[in-house]
Amino acid sequence: MTLSANTLLDQAPAVVNVGIDGLNASVVANGGSLTHVQWQPPGDADPALAWQLARSMADARIEAANAEATRRIIAARPMWEDIALRADGVWPAMKGTRLLLHAGPPVAWADMCGPMHGAMIGAVLYEGWARDAEQARRMLERGEVAFAQCHDFDAVGPMTGVISASMPLIQVRDATHGNVAYTNINEGIGRCLRFGANGPDVLQRLKWFEAVLAPVLKAAVRHEFDKTGGIDLKSIQSQALLMGDEVHSRNAASTSLFFMALAVPLAAVSQQKNAVPQDHIHQTLDFVARTSQFFLNYSMVSCKAIMDAAHGIAFSTVVTATARNGTETGLRVSGTGRQWFTAPSDLPKGLFFPGFKQEDACPDIGDSAITETAGFGGCSFAASPALTLLAGGTVADAVRYSLEMLEVTVTRNPSLSLPALDFAGAPCGIDVRKVVDTGIRPIVTTGIAHKEAGVGQIGAGVVRVPMACYVKAFNALAEQFAKA
Amino acid sequence: MTLSANTLLDQAPAVVNVGIDGLNASVVANGGSLTHVQWQPPGDADPALAWQLARSMADARIEAANAEATRRIIAARPMWEDIALRADGVWPAMKGTRLLLHAGPPVAWADMCGPMHGAMIGAVLYEGWARDAEQARRMLERGEVAFAQCHDFDAVGPMTGVISASMPLIQVRDATHGNVAYTNINEGIGRCLRFGANGPDVLQRLKWFEAVLAPVLKAAVRHEFDKTGGIDLKSIQSQALLMGDEVHSRNAASTSLFFMALAVPLAAVSQQKNAVPQDHIHQTLDFVARTSQFFLNYSMVSCKAIMDAAHGIAFSTVVTATARNGTETGLRVSGTGRQWFTAPSDLPKGLFFPGFKQEDACPDIGDSAITETAGFGGCSFAASPALTLLAGGTVADAVRYSLEMLEVTVTRNPSLSLPALDFAGAPCGIDVRKVVDTGIRPIVTTGIAHKEAGVGQIGAGVVRVPMACYVKAFNALAEQFAKA
Repeated sequence: MTLSANTLLDQAPAVVNVGIDGLNASVVANGGSLTHVQWQPPGDADPALAWQLARSMADARIEAANAEATRRIIAARPMWEDIALRADGVWPAMKGTRLLLHAGPPVAWADMCGPMHGAMIGAVLYEGWARDAEQARRMLERGEVAFAQCHDFDAVGPMTGVISASMPLIQVRDATHGNVAYTNINEGIGRCLRFGANGPDVLQRLKWFEAVLAPVLKAAVRHEFDKTGGIDLKSIQSQALLMGDEVHSRNAASTSLFFMALAVPLAAVSQQKNAVPQDHIHQTLDFVARTSQFFLNYSMVSCKAIMDAAHGIAFSTVVTATARNGTETGLRVSGTGRQWFTAPSDLPKGLFFPGFKQEDACPDIGDSAITETAGFGGCSFAASPALTLLAGGTVADAVRYSLEMLEVTVTRNPSLSLPALDFAGAPCGIDVRKVVDTGIRPIVTTGIAHKEAGVGQIGAGVVRVPMACYVKAFNALAEQFAKA
Repeated sequence: MTLSANTLLDQAPAVVNVGIDGLNASVVANGGSLTHVQWQPPGDADPALAWQLARSMADARIEAANAEATRRIIAARPMWEDIALRADGVWPAMKGTRLLLHAGPPVAWADMCGPMHGAMIGAVLYEGWARDAEQARRMLERGEVAFAQCHDFDAVGPMTGVISASMPLIQVRDATHGNVAYTNINEGIGRCLRFGANGPDVLQRLKWFEAVLAPVLKAAVRHEFDKTGGIDLKSIQSQALLMGDEVHSRNAASTSLFFMALAVPLAAVSQQKNAVPQDHIHQTLDFVARTSQFFLNYSMVSCKAIMDAAHGIAFSTVVTATARNGTETGLRVSGTGRQWFTAPSDLPKGLFFPGFKQEDACPDIGDSAITETAGFGGCSFAASPALTLLAGGTVADAVRYSLEMLEVTVTRNPSLSLPALDFAGAPCGIDVRKVVDTGIRPIVTTGIAHKEAGVGQIGAGVVRVPMACYVKAFNALAEQFAKA
């Protein structure tokens, strides 16, 4: 068959549209076939930014800095070495004052989402600063409690991420670079402080953490520390990538590997004099075995230790923290110190538990996107086909997300293998420049919280980090490059 | 372009060859391009067999019987309910006599492979029937020890599969159909009786099983049995398929899930009076945590319980056991009772540990192909990309093996999801007719034993079951159908 203008006119239109999608509806409405290639001009369509971007892509100082950042990410060896029984024992700033840490970038009481309000009230009650929720709320409204970000205390917290003075902390050291990171302990599913629940059941569980769970975890890890220097979290994470976890929204394998690393020393510990009570060991193991996301907090703190090692490298455009407070999402970048680059959080999309729907969802919340920042979660979605059963999408989508993330990262991490990509290394080092250049917004696998305090998790899915965060970060970096 | 005889003559030949490959070399040698479609005539090229096969494919009695067999496979619910502390306590036939069970179909002493000889000598020493290996060998040569197949004792054993009177047994009941199955306990890696090693270290470990490991396992499972009816092995197997195991050659996830199911009741047990000593619990947990194939034997006995439930259905052409003794591979089929259909075992191909090569390999050995028979292992290779790291091949090969097995099975098992196939059910019920008709020999994922006794595992890979087994089975079935 010969193609001619006539032939084309005789047929329904077959259109390939690159870029904006305004035309698409009319093509389809006229019976045409449409292939829409997503594309947007680099630099978020800002000519000045596009120019800066082009220059930055050829800047050897940036390339060298990013190579160093990813070398550190790859070399990091986060070891769980202790449980700190009280947060204010680690952070003197918390002692004798009313200070609460939360997930994400800074946020004022008036701007906090429902779950964050609920968690703050819960923490005030848990610390005994107020006798009931109403009094706690008034205290918080009057500004009688100070807030700070977990990230400023070398810490991360899932969802609301609220950490208060008497909470036990998981303590992890990057054995390669020496930096230390902290997080709180996973509360399981249902009504939890991290989702803004603050009833007596929630506070009682936190007290049980103090009295039972944390001392048992401490006994196990100290026993192991004396023998081997602690429990190697990156080893668990990388094994779990071969076992269907992306160690953000799915931690079934990592929790079971972690459980083995915990139970063997505990069986030794319980033969010692003055050991933690055997009943406490039983309660602890039972709780961990029933909490398939128990390893999430360990995964997060492992990633925090990894990414802190890559932070503070002049000229590096590698993102070292992605964090959400339920109102805004913020980035920190290796080369720009403690500055946050923020934008309003998007709503996660995915599958909802029975009885809940998209309108119930709280905007993206939690420090757990530190896992993506370190190459897990959305970056390693290809490793976790089973997560699609919970979060929606197809196995092909899961693979595609990882391939997309390879477009916006500096390199591959050879110690994190993705089986579905023939064991290629996971994406390593999200590069602000590449995100702005390609328009590919990094993907985050996430639990979905109800927008009202205390309802808890109502689903799981994915969300993309707002482009404005990267554009702001790039602008700050460009200014820095211009000066240097 | 118009194709003509002239055009063809002008060009190098482009040949599609269906079937025998005798032509291929000459086509390529003459610069031609070749597509070779593998095909063989149904019925192994025997016209009489092909005729019987065509008739059997349209036989409603067979279809109904196979539907019943796969219904039973799918409905089976194998529960680990006990440890029998001595095999001769379960099987009176073993008491006060010299009887050893082994893997696979029957085999005489003279025909046994190296590892089987070694394991038999080891078992004689372990039972104290001889004072040294030389005396044991003479005793065996003189026929002073009787042999029987594990399968005839409702049991399975990995590799040599040798089971003797004082060995503890894992006891599993199919809670749906009531039948009971047994196996021995996994010895870990290195020098093991199942590979024919029989030195003092090997026998000492077996004594430690008797004194320490088995009583601890028993205490755990009896505690759980009283609470919940036992430990649900199919649940562990099906979860593990989402976690990178095919629960034959890879059991990393299943062993860790099993470990959790074991350690929680043990933490409760150790609070009881007269409990097993805490030190024994520690030794046991430490051993299981270090033995990533510990669950293999549980997976095998679970599959034995499943497949026994589907055995003994008149007219069913579903394979209910695939078993190898290191010399021959044998099948049992649901509709043909205890008859074995045997052929010489093939050599497994795969990756060898450093220092070993293909020539060192023992022919295919062990009852572990019961896992394929029940839909795991080679049938579910798509679930286990990580196994290719150990057994060779690519991730695409792993998927292809599962797709091939769907060609020769009756249906899919909805309770066994394969993530890489978008969670399609695993192949269920190997149909003798379909194997003979398609020429697709079922694939088995397997450890590779050294051909000499006691060297142990030298690699892992895949092997195909000999076609002659299925042809013999089909002939026996055809005879039966003709009579009925």
